Amino acid sequence: MTADAATRGPGRPRDATIDAKVLDAARDVLVAHGFNGATVQAIAARSGVHASAIYRRWPSRIEIIEQAVFPGLEPVKVRPTGDLRRDVRRFIRAFLAVVGEPAARAAIPGLLATYQSGRLPADEEWLAVSARPLFLDILAAAPAGRVDPAVDPGDVFDVLLGAMLARILVPTVVQRDRPIERLVDLTLRLLQPAATGRRR
Amino acid sequence: MTADAATRGPGRPRDATIDAKVLDAARDVLVAHGFNGATVQAIAARSGVHASAIYRRWPSRIEIIEQAVFPGLEPVKVRPTGDLRRDVRRFIRAFLAVVGEPAARAAIPGLLATYQSGRLPADEEWLAVSARPLFLDILAAAPAGRVDPAVDPGDVFDVLLGAMLARILVPTVVQRDRPIERLVDLTLRLLQPAATGRRR
Repeated sequence: MTADAATRGPGRPRDATIDAKVLDAARDVLVAHGFNGATVQAIAARSGVHASAIYRRWPSRIEIIEQAVFPGLEPVKVRPTGDLRRDVRRFIRAFLAVVGEPAARAAIPGLLATYQSGRLPADEEWLAVSARPLFLDILAAAPAGRVDPAVDPGDVFDVLLGAMLARILVPTVVQRDRPIERLVDLTLRLLQPAATGRRR
Repeated sequence: MTADAATRGPGRPRDATIDAKVLDAARDVLVAHGFNGATVQAIAARSGVHASAIYRRWPSRIEIIEQAVFPGLEPVKVRPTGDLRRDVRRFIRAFLAVVGEPAARAAIPGLLATYQSGRLPADEEWLAVSARPLFLDILAAAPAGRVDPAVDPGDVFDVLLGAMLARILVPTVVQRDRPIERLVDLTLRLLQPAATGRRR
């Protein structure tokens, strides 16, 4: 294992390559050994970065995994074009690509389990970093009349987020393997103005 | 899934009270120690049933947890009345009550993690036992004109399933704590006939 040069002495700048090595190794270990196998020791061994250097950067393996799997959801940054169906389709495809990555698929249920025991994500917008604001931007860019002002876009995002996660994580949904376009259709249905006013 | 009594060899009939003790203990251990703490040893200690007797009934802790947490989703058995909004509301409330139970909340992400590594649920309708058919029954009982025939009810169920799980499991959605009626509204939107035909 190599010594951590960047943190050895005072005054040295943080070595970003060490962060990248650790995060890359975390993704590899997640894919190879799953969430429970992705320990700091395993990540240290894989990355060649000493565990003590890792602990100087992250409080626990959970923060490493969060950062390794959701580096800001960059691929979801889809510039809205104003074509609502097209933008929603690109958004859904981009998000599914991120959460469908093997490392993310391995990590997400483990992280959700961790959160059930009371530890909340380091970043409160976890799993929605850049995705929720981007979705709201897409709706704001839609032509007049395509999005019912009576619908709360945040509520639609929550439903879509659950639906996308279910496509990746819930076997009964994964096995149905429905075309992504079906989810695009349903998302547009959530947004469309009601035919004759909402009936109760 | 429990072992078939017939495969246990000759001898005494299966003692159902032992099954109940083990499943009750599994729920207690899930709440107290989480998914990872719910080992066969811990369940044996809690139930007073010897581990060897447990292994005669279930292949592993996973099958015990599946059965303990989803005993058929009985509470979701809501008889459709034909009032679509009311039936959908009762369905959502009943399902959320089941998956929102502390033992279920502790178990679901762990089970989802297990399924990512290739082991599928013993019961292929896991997490949808009685819920998917019931949802389809509710739609079938709706008055004419309330459910768009162009919509696939199974697709709507998948979206709703994901949205309900997100309300229980995803911190960014849990924290928003939106009224259940919002999810009822959105579900009805998915079902309603389009205003002027679907635009593309």
